Amino acid sequence: MSAWVLPDHIADVLPSEARHIEELRRDLLDTARSYGYELVMPPLLEHLESLLTGTGEALDLQTFKLVDQLSGRMLGLRADTTQQVARIDAHLLNRQGVTRLCYCGPVLHTRPGRPHATREPLQFGAEIYGHAGVEADVEVLRLALDCLAAAELGGVQLDLGDARIPRAVLAQVDAPEALLSEVRGALAAKDASGLAQLSRGFQPAVRDALAALVGLYGGSEVLDEAAKALGSFGDVQAALQTLRRLAASVPAERISFDLADLRGYAYYSGARFSMYVAGASDAIVRGGRYDEVGAVFGRNRPAVGFSLDLRELVGVVRPRELRAAIRAPWSDDATLSQAIGALRAGGETVVCVMPGHESEIDEFRCDRELALRAGSWTVLSL
Amino acid sequence: MSAWVLPDHIADVLPSEARHIEELRRDLLDTARSYGYELVMPPLLEHLESLLTGTGEALDLQTFKLVDQLSGRMLGLRADTTQQVARIDAHLLNRQGVTRLCYCGPVLHTRPGRPHATREPLQFGAEIYGHAGVEADVEVLRLALDCLAAAELGGVQLDLGDARIPRAVLAQVDAPEALLSEVRGALAAKDASGLAQLSRGFQPAVRDALAALVGLYGGSEVLDEAAKALGSFGDVQAALQTLRRLAASVPAERISFDLADLRGYAYYSGARFSMYVAGASDAIVRGGRYDEVGAVFGRNRPAVGFSLDLRELVGVVRPRELRAAIRAPWSDDATLSQAIGALRAGGETVVCVMPGHESEIDEFRCDRELALRAGSWTVLSL
Repeated sequence: MSAWVLPDHIADVLPSEARHIEELRRDLLDTARSYGYELVMPPLLEHLESLLTGTGEALDLQTFKLVDQLSGRMLGLRADTTQQVARIDAHLLNRQGVTRLCYCGPVLHTRPGRPHATREPLQFGAEIYGHAGVEADVEVLRLALDCLAAAELGGVQLDLGDARIPRAVLAQVDAPEALLSEVRGALAAKDASGLAQLSRGFQPAVRDALAALVGLYGGSEVLDEAAKALGSFGDVQAALQTLRRLAASVPAERISFDLADLRGYAYYSGARFSMYVAGASDAIVRGGRYDEVGAVFGRNRPAVGFSLDLRELVGVVRPRELRAAIRAPWSDDATLSQAIGALRAGGETVVCVMPGHESEIDEFRCDRELALRAGSWTVLSL
Repeated sequence: MSAWVLPDHIADVLPSEARHIEELRRDLLDTARSYGYELVMPPLLEHLESLLTGTGEALDLQTFKLVDQLSGRMLGLRADTTQQVARIDAHLLNRQGVTRLCYCGPVLHTRPGRPHATREPLQFGAEIYGHAGVEADVEVLRLALDCLAAAELGGVQLDLGDARIPRAVLAQVDAPEALLSEVRGALAAKDASGLAQLSRGFQPAVRDALAALVGLYGGSEVLDEAAKALGSFGDVQAALQTLRRLAASVPAERISFDLADLRGYAYYSGARFSMYVAGASDAIVRGGRYDEVGAVFGRNRPAVGFSLDLRELVGVVRPRELRAAIRAPWSDDATLSQAIGALRAGGETVVCVMPGHESEIDEFRCDRELALRAGSWTVLSL
């Protein structure tokens, strides 16, 4: 096989897309900063138990493992950044009050998350720690929507759910973990007949609740139906109240509810949301509350956050136009160097043509050139 | 061991440093773009032979290896980006003319490059392909100096050498590779007595040339001495001419020459340079010509480039001041949301205080607050 063949689901990002990703990256980080979210950069490699303890099997299977030559211990390449940011909040910052953090960097997956997905997403995310009230959920939801607005994405469909609702129903099931796992799978896949089959041996109240839950998706009427069908289970009422409050707090164009939603990593503990846009085959943003995620680091703080993959985002936003460049001849003339330096300092791209390459077509679109006119270097239209 | 302990030579980057790195990152990428260098993003993972063929043992030892579950083949985590960018130039872009590319992303090392070095440098670099003339060397050198200027680093010491000079002398040695390797080590370490010992069996002319070479570092007088002592070897004269031209073409405050320089990766084939600044224990920038680096991808193009580690750079530049933020109360009032949105759109950071956290000290320095005065939301000094 040739040296230039890349592994499956791994790709280079070439100039026009890379420029676009970089612009989006800056817009997202600037939006997070405008909300007071501070940037952190956790490492790509950590001890496996730091990355995986308490996060479930899905993340374990997605994590590349290798041996540290310095210590002989197992390391993991991060497949998700949330656990790392929880560690930073818990141990490095160790603040008593509210902490807002954001990040942007690659993660690696042993297998693509979906068909045609990359194994090297560029994950951007933001998280708020230390506030248990719904205001933290509202702020994160607004920030996520503002990030999509900064990327000039319109027509966002917001999907709301709450991990407490399926959990409250499943808490009443006394069944082995293997069966529970199948039930969760059927719920996630909205497989009503499979679910009916799997829950045959459960108590009638739980069986009815599961049958109701799998159909609880759609507009806000779903919340009223849920209150009737599931209101007696655990903290379902509290969850429904949170969802009403969230829906009322954001200016999303279209809001729907999916109360059986169990997709994504296992760490969610409260309200959760997904955002969909035209052109993306899956949710472009996923987020929610995961109050337990810092527990392994000895500090169980309330936490809400979201993340997205910039490489997926760039595929659904409109590319921006590249600002045209200026072509300059090559010369050792000091006045030319000065003229070029001044243009570059002013934000222009000035491409110096290497001797012998005058007739090449520039990859940067040059619409002007720097030429000597009446003894001074002047920018002329091409 | 606790879950929050990181592997040796691996560290989180916390908010104040992360913000600074992000600012430097943008400055460097913008500087490269102002020269017409296009951003590319090669992957973190590649087939091992793509990353390592022709690059020498040093890079091999620095590269983490793992097995691809999808193909069963060996993958490497990139320890250097140059080889990847050469692959992109050779196969993906495949342009006939001059191509200018830059990149910025993490690389991983199995072992720290030096004591106290990180195993996860954030490598920034720029490369020009397709021009064999010295102008490409000049442009890359100027770009590297402008990058340090953009980082507001003064007092740069520029060290010039040329891989052709030691190579021309060593080409005359008929000795086993193990001995040659020791000779190269002694040259790199400027170990004159060790070198004398090792070269005892060589021809007198070569022995004298090696003895001269190991002392050829210092000011421009070194070039004249080299012309006398080594001028008859291979393309030493051509190399010296390149070095004179380079030294004359850049405005570096202090220029010195080190003609025996063999440090860094083995791919250099012509003029090479290092930049030193106060506070850094090693070169902060390394670069030069490596015309052979694309050969493994079937396209041997002239190439010149440089790279630096942003995490090292941030340690030697003066931190910039954080722009102070505005504190706002939490409220569902739509006019407050509008006022906050307008301030954020104008580039301000507005931190909304979560209910119950009013007395906490903000991590963002807030010097103003948004308050309701005479019925409208107003920014007041704190």
